[in-house]
Amino acid sequence: MVNYPHHLIRKPDQPSSKSKSVNFANRGMSFETAINATNDYYLSRHLAVVHKKPTPIQIVKVDYPRRSRAKIVEAYFRQASTTDYSGVYKGRYLDFEAKETRQKSSMPMKNFHAHQIEHMENVLEQNGICFVLLHFSTLKETYFLPADALVAFYQIDQGTKSMPLDYIKKNGYMVTNGRLPQVPYLDIIDKIFLGGD
Amino acid sequence: MVNYPHHLIRKPDQPSSKSKSVNFANRGMSFETAINATNDYYLSRHLAVVHKKPTPIQIVKVDYPRRSRAKIVEAYFRQASTTDYSGVYKGRYLDFEAKETRQKSSMPMKNFHAHQIEHMENVLEQNGICFVLLHFSTLKETYFLPADALVAFYQIDQGTKSMPLDYIKKNGYMVTNGRLPQVPYLDIIDKIFLGGD
Repeated sequence: MVNYPHHLIRKPDQPSSKSKSVNFANRGMSFETAINATNDYYLSRHLAVVHKKPTPIQIVKVDYPRRSRAKIVEAYFRQASTTDYSGVYKGRYLDFEAKETRQKSSMPMKNFHAHQIEHMENVLEQNGICFVLLHFSTLKETYFLPADALVAFYQIDQGTKSMPLDYIKKNGYMVTNGRLPQVPYLDIIDKIFLGGD
Repeated sequence: MVNYPHHLIRKPDQPSSKSKSVNFANRGMSFETAINATNDYYLSRHLAVVHKKPTPIQIVKVDYPRRSRAKIVEAYFRQASTTDYSGVYKGRYLDFEAKETRQKSSMPMKNFHAHQIEHMENVLEQNGICFVLLHFSTLKETYFLPADALVAFYQIDQGTKSMPLDYIKKNGYMVTNGRLPQVPYLDIIDKIFLGGD
């Protein structure tokens, strides 16, 4: 049997068997960059249309210099009242937030604001597919946690400063990070929301 | 029969019978404001979750003055690559753009960029509910035009500078502007996308 150099013949969209060596973190990518790349991949393959919303900015002053475009000279960051990502997959509405921590056993709850939790509740009520992607950078592990589990934890343990990894493991799903797409969350949506479709 | 002062006893959510007198334009509202108010109404009544995306901004320089929050001191407007509004209604993904013109017989096509048309095509391919709301301020008429009709017009008549009102009437639906909600676009979605559900 001929010994093909597998790394040369492997198709670009085929996940590597050595997942550790292709983890986006090892390739110098932030979690957000990996998710954006995943969304670009899904869009280019016509699998889903998901975009990150622009950062909300409060514009205070704009200058109009001659012969050039409008220049914003005073503006401030506003707190997002919704989640960062939304889009469409097989007709269904997708809505999610992505958070990263260096902690090894919990996700700090300060990552989620009251307005965002409320938004998730509204989306769930409209039967949207809503979830959070939680990345533990030290562990190199990513979890898909359905929003109802996050909302439940938030409502029951409002005083709790962090959500234990055990809770996330019990109520969520591990995402096997790959090469392309880096964070294949649609696989989990197929399995848990669309009945393995 | 007692002559009740009807404007005092009418419930705030009840559409007025005199639609002309309650048109949002007559009340000094811009079309965008009327759509945002409509979305607020839908959200508060738990009918749909639809938000306007923040304006995309390219941030160049941020100052961090002492004892105050980050201040953006140089930034520029970027062209939107998607549509302005997206959300969820009965599990389905909604995606639309709203445009206003003072012209009486056509909508200038410069209102729609190539990236936005491409985005609409992607959304349609994923079976999202995609459309444009077109307001003719001089006529005080608003139309709901499904995105496939806009995309078809754009592709066939790329050289054409404006889309005739006749084409919009033939392929779209008039929205009866009301008091609350001001631009009741969900009625049309129920009728043409969800089978009168």
